Amino acid sequence: MSSASPSISIDLRVRYPECDPMGYAHHSVYPVWFEIARTELLRQTGVSYADLERDGMLIVVVKLELKYRRPARYDDEVRVIATTTRASGVRIEHDYEVRRGHELLCTGSTTLACLDREGKLQQVPEMLRLEK
Amino acid sequence: MSSASPSISIDLRVRYPECDPMGYAHHSVYPVWFEIARTELLRQTGVSYADLERDGMLIVVVKLELKYRRPARYDDEVRVIATTTRASGVRIEHDYEVRRGHELLCTGSTTLACLDREGKLQQVPEMLRLEK
Amino acid sequence: MSSASPSISIDLRVRYPECDPMGYAHHSVYPVWFEIARTELLRQTGVSYADLERDGMLIVVVKLELKYRRPARYDDEVRVIATTTRASGVRIEHDYEVRRGHELLCTGSTTLACLDREGKLQQVPEMLRLEK
Amino acid sequence: MSSASPSISIDLRVRYPECDPMGYAHHSVYPVWFEIARTELLRQTGVSYADLERDGMLIVVVKLELKYRRPARYDDEVRVIATTTRASGVRIEHDYEVRRGHELLCTGSTTLACLDREGKLQQVPEMLRLEK
Repeated sequence: MSSASPSISIDLRVRYPECDPMGYAHHSVYPVWFEIARTELLRQTGVSYADLERDGMLIVVVKLELKYRRPARYDDEVRVIATTTRASGVRIEHDYEVRRGHELLCTGSTTLACLDREGKLQQVPEMLRLEK
Repeated sequence: MSSASPSISIDLRVRYPECDPMGYAHHSVYPVWFEIARTELLRQTGVSYADLERDGMLIVVVKLELKYRRPARYDDEVRVIATTTRASGVRIEHDYEVRRGHELLCTGSTTLACLDREGKLQQVPEMLRLEK
Repeated sequence: MSSASPSISIDLRVRYPECDPMGYAHHSVYPVWFEIARTELLRQTGVSYADLERDGMLIVVVKLELKYRRPARYDDEVRVIATTTRASGVRIEHDYEVRRGHELLCTGSTTLACLDREGKLQQVPEMLRLEK
Repeated sequence: MSSASPSISIDLRVRYPECDPMGYAHHSVYPVWFEIARTELLRQTGVSYADLERDGMLIVVVKLELKYRRPARYDDEVRVIATTTRASGVRIEHDYEVRRGHELLCTGSTTLACLDREGKLQQVPEMLRLEK
């Protein structure tokens, strides 16, 4: 159990099929980038999501919010920053930022729930808990 | 200009690559379904988004919120309901529901902004306006 | 077991995020359309792929070939035609065409293999076999 | 103009939404990985595809072939190797391999055509030509 706010930055290059006819990264791609950052944040704590899933723990997104400020374009290098803001009970919450250099492109947040294979809510695993 | 709340229902079958290793439609797919419903709602008013774009009007998502209640699975037939809740000034707002039969799977909302090709905010076109 | 060549036509509207900055449906989207048509062709014979998968039969693509002749664009209505050309032993073969009105946009073919959950090759189920 | 066969290796981690309910990277994702490798190969020669596109040169895939040998799974690290095998006249040809450690997962090839904005075939730019 931790009391700091674990955070991670990952760098991604915007893929061609992630972009739409406007030439912008489609708005549905940002949740994918959030998930990549969140997975690496989990890996930092010594767990891989693939392992959790093999052990029968499913982690599903129950809430997602995004604000888009500026578009990302094909071939841009963007930085995705994920921070765990709360992880207790049956919920894990993260905040996100997507940046291109000094520009803030997008902010967002997710709430995750831990389920077993029958879809029953589970307590957040001890090693992932974050109390404030 | 209209004072009712235009609404549309479309039926979709969940595609195989839209589903993840849990067997659920990935959470990033719902914004794509919302967009399909929203496009058909626009077409109902006599405009196609493809035409607007050819005329130099870009409509971008600036805010997106979703709550996921139950998972959709591969090959499920789902109904996506989109309702325009506000369309005035430079913003258009929609609410969404995704249903499988009587079950509510997901609710959401988007805020769109109208831009010209230089990215400058534009007034919502007269024919799309909805005042309440 | 059948000796005719089962075939199906499905109509799809090109989705916005399926299109790239050129405004064309991205070349990686056509295999997804092929799969949708193939799934409906299977359903025509009275089986759903979702059912097969629940019964432990996996059907995987082992070979894929495509020729792109003209681009599909956002909001185009395209027709995808899938034909089973062979289904015997451990392999199922299909041919595909994508058309927009009278224009031929793309042709392709796939070879599928039937596997059990351990990845071992299985005979094509009797009801799907097609000998020529 | 060059007479060697330019080649590149890139390492990718398989993303969660790239995987299907079998837990395998969906077969439509490999062409996306090929394109990422091909883009980096182009960048190596000092050109970015984004630049070419801004200059009005479109490079489209006209032929695609893949053979799938073993599945990639979520969170796998895979290596994608792209080699230019021919670049002359109006066509550019590449071969691809996808590997996980010593295992060969997939091989493929693409043929690209160079077009102007009106869709007219163009000669391969001098700096990209490869004669054998």
